[in-house]
Amino acid sequence: MYGIPMKNDHLIWHEESRREVYRSRVLSVRDTTCRSPAGTSGVFTIIDASDWAIVVPVIETERGKEFVMVRQWRHGSRELSLEFPGGVFEPGEDPLEAAARELREETAYAPNTIRKIGEFSPNPAIMANHVHIFLAEDLRPLDKQDLDDDEYVDVELVPVREVFLGLGRPPYVHALMGSAYCLYLQAAEATG
Amino acid sequence: MYGIPMKNDHLIWHEESRREVYRSRVLSVRDTTCRSPAGTSGVFTIIDASDWAIVVPVIETERGKEFVMVRQWRHGSRELSLEFPGGVFEPGEDPLEAAARELREETAYAPNTIRKIGEFSPNPAIMANHVHIFLAEDLRPLDKQDLDDDEYVDVELVPVREVFLGLGRPPYVHALMGSAYCLYLQAAEATG
Repeated sequence: MYGIPMKNDHLIWHEESRREVYRSRVLSVRDTTCRSPAGTSGVFTIIDASDWAIVVPVIETERGKEFVMVRQWRHGSRELSLEFPGGVFEPGEDPLEAAARELREETAYAPNTIRKIGEFSPNPAIMANHVHIFLAEDLRPLDKQDLDDDEYVDVELVPVREVFLGLGRPPYVHALMGSAYCLYLQAAEATG
Repeated sequence: MYGIPMKNDHLIWHEESRREVYRSRVLSVRDTTCRSPAGTSGVFTIIDASDWAIVVPVIETERGKEFVMVRQWRHGSRELSLEFPGGVFEPGEDPLEAAARELREETAYAPNTIRKIGEFSPNPAIMANHVHIFLAEDLRPLDKQDLDDDEYVDVELVPVREVFLGLGRPPYVHALMGSAYCLYLQAAEATG
């Protein structure tokens, strides 16, 4: 007995303490002291930030299945990125409603059906938050986007295959779009 | 003329200044002031860190095509994660050699062929670095891993299909493994 829990004991670290070292509006940084499987101590830099949604919106057009995507400037990579829509959960907000809201605001499409298809750590070595992936289907067009004052977002319909072939090269530079695409593939296979 | 460059002017921000606000051994944080397409100013928190490699190592066994994967503790998500091997480029190091080195050290397999299959921004909204994805094939087993003192890494062979089906759920919690898997799919399709 205890075979499964003990199996991985030689890999597991235990947190001993944490200390915040920086905080901004969107993230905070902490030093976390952990005890290794061998009993030694190490200090690691970890970033805390909000969980957020990525929504894979699928629409049928005369060209076949297409994704509703957004083209926007990204301040980290300093380039335009063509992405699935998404955004940060507001405090207390239901994740499914947050995902539908972000889709509506950024693309002016509202989903008649939306469901969660998976969840990832965006970068589990240094980030503690999670990204939740949703599949949105049966989309209704709305009158217009509902963007924040500092949001500049173009909406584009892109064939599913074109996105797959483009991943890993501009403008498909956002790694997490590949993560979301994998879960779309899983879901598409599961539902035939 | 100038049609293509001007087409996206309504989306592009311009950096005006940057100021470092925090630095640790593995990352630094800066406030970056940018001018919006409409001419207003905004301040954004951006993280600078090293570029790194993710290596997709493929091996043929009696079970078919399998990935060589590593199971390790991740301090951000505080859980065990089953991942493709990889690691940070050392200063001045050739990316291809860095990728092969990380594969050897973490898994005790050396690649007879290795090539880059794409590149992503891991999180272009807030991070300025890049992750480079490599495909490693025709692997030779070495005597043993060559781990740092604070590295605890188990090596496992996992069928390609099992990884695909597991993405987005434990132990396949690392989002960038999905990104790398997409580029593996692209490369597999291109070479038949």
